Amino acid sequence: MAVRKHKLINRPEDLVDEMLAGFCAAYGDIVRCGDNRLVMRAEPKAPGKVGLVMGSGSGHEPAMLGWVGEGLLDVVVAGEVFAAPGPDNMLAGIRAADRGGGVLICVSHHAGDRLNAELALELCEIEGIDNVDMVLLYDDISSAPKGRESERRGTAGLFFIWKLLGAYCEGDVSLAAAKALAEKVRDNTRSLAVSLSSCASPMTGETMFALAADEMEIGMGLHGEMGRGRQKALSADETIDLMLPPLLADLPYQTGDETLVLLNNSGSLTLMELFILYRRAAARLAEAGIRVYRSWIGPYATTLETAGFALALCRVDEQMKALWDAPANGAYMKQL
Amino acid sequence: MAVRKHKLINRPEDLVDEMLAGFCAAYGDIVRCGDNRLVMRAEPKAPGKVGLVMGSGSGHEPAMLGWVGEGLLDVVVAGEVFAAPGPDNMLAGIRAADRGGGVLICVSHHAGDRLNAELALELCEIEGIDNVDMVLLYDDISSAPKGRESERRGTAGLFFIWKLLGAYCEGDVSLAAAKALAEKVRDNTRSLAVSLSSCASPMTGETMFALAADEMEIGMGLHGEMGRGRQKALSADETIDLMLPPLLADLPYQTGDETLVLLNNSGSLTLMELFILYRRAAARLAEAGIRVYRSWIGPYATTLETAGFALALCRVDEQMKALWDAPANGAYMKQL
Repeated sequence: MAVRKHKLINRPEDLVDEMLAGFCAAYGDIVRCGDNRLVMRAEPKAPGKVGLVMGSGSGHEPAMLGWVGEGLLDVVVAGEVFAAPGPDNMLAGIRAADRGGGVLICVSHHAGDRLNAELALELCEIEGIDNVDMVLLYDDISSAPKGRESERRGTAGLFFIWKLLGAYCEGDVSLAAAKALAEKVRDNTRSLAVSLSSCASPMTGETMFALAADEMEIGMGLHGEMGRGRQKALSADETIDLMLPPLLADLPYQTGDETLVLLNNSGSLTLMELFILYRRAAARLAEAGIRVYRSWIGPYATTLETAGFALALCRVDEQMKALWDAPANGAYMKQL
Repeated sequence: MAVRKHKLINRPEDLVDEMLAGFCAAYGDIVRCGDNRLVMRAEPKAPGKVGLVMGSGSGHEPAMLGWVGEGLLDVVVAGEVFAAPGPDNMLAGIRAADRGGGVLICVSHHAGDRLNAELALELCEIEGIDNVDMVLLYDDISSAPKGRESERRGTAGLFFIWKLLGAYCEGDVSLAAAKALAEKVRDNTRSLAVSLSSCASPMTGETMFALAADEMEIGMGLHGEMGRGRQKALSADETIDLMLPPLLADLPYQTGDETLVLLNNSGSLTLMELFILYRRAAARLAEAGIRVYRSWIGPYATTLETAGFALALCRVDEQMKALWDAPANGAYMKQL
């Protein structure tokens, strides 16, 4: 299917810097931009708190820019489109996030993000910056089988980690405790995505992948990576009925569990469709005896204008529920 | 350009009811659904307050469902896709919003919305429900020339009215004062939209209009209505430079004015593009000596998955700034 190739941009090589300039101009009460493509809180967190840093390729907006703020992340380091920022910029981000309580680098598991975070850690060692650690985050069940969870990709379900970890690190916690909380949320999170059509790169104009008008891809990654394969496009209810059982079986969920639910818009799916999909997901979860604690439906981690969505679940206990309900104030994530 | 025709829905005739069921299931802490396709606050406002009712065709999500809540609207009556709800459902919405302080029907100016609101007012008279009034809202400068503002369409700029009017009606104000405030905000609001590609109806699968891959339409309405005509697609900066001068001239703005700014995503434009567009708009406003008080960038009133955006401005005084900053808690509009 044809995808839109004309983008409302200027020169492709200016795209990331112009995007950051516009974002920080619009939300100057929440964030400020710095050198090295850093997006930082307008008002840094209190001294002594653990700092949270995330490197993120561009093209997923509002992720991760929209998650910088009170109760969320401290610093996001923006990369080129779908490419992780380099170690020098990551090091600058670590310095900016350092409030004396240690810094945790949050890595959405992809080869480039992991490599650059590891290189940044080496730079920290050379420069004598200690009390820095990284945590590897993943959630996409289509990218590796059960039992090999640590090989999985990071996708939209990391949403839950940013919120819960961000709230946790507003408190007086250690770097080790912050890392353990991130791992706890990660180990309770599972995601699966589908897509109906691709997007075109704003850099090259080329389409990322091709799908026929009556096809859908199951298990797409956050950069259009292929998943479990393609098939004839289904109805809303059929799509949920295909996605939910493997998600529930993977953790596995038990009757009586409580969960957070995210339906993440990959770009150009309509909210109308997402609400219809949610209706079925909620009904199926109820049938399985799983209680939904809170839900979100919208564009949180996009793949440019890809038409698709991810269904992500995070099983929660009392600690995690309280962290979810704690206040947050990012440009694209607000909790009252 | 080809548009996506496969939608993740079930039977088209169930679309609106299933969408409402999913929305209300996801956000049950904020809204509840009622008969007659009503979406109401989960906790109604205090007795004696002016009630705000809005009828809205579907296909613009999160408008208007996402604007029901504290500090916003009381009741939204959902219509079919791009069609206003009928007078009986509007009457049900008026009854549901009535807290004894009068009810204001907010009408986004389109023939169908106006007609059904007027018929609902007649039903109120027949049934002896008094203290109900309506206000006609419009903002789109492409739909009628200056001097004939009252012929203009309601589009994305009504965003400002919902927020300011909603905050105003949380206070102890009369129905007449509420209507006057809505008119004040309306008379300070101006919008203009552009689109790069159309969308397909989820009911029929038909594309709303056709644009070549290298064309853009200036002045598109919220249902794909044609505007000032089409032309070769421009860069981001060129597009803003085309749109901003007629918006500023229409009010007209003066050096030293303060304004709210909205860049509304019509559906499948990327946030990356919108941030780049915003950067230019902010620079041009600064050059014109106009101070931006607050800005929002995102999908607020969509036209299904249309690729386009609206630039909307609302000139503000101290009263309006305070109303903007007042708290709000809708599913898709939160102010801390």
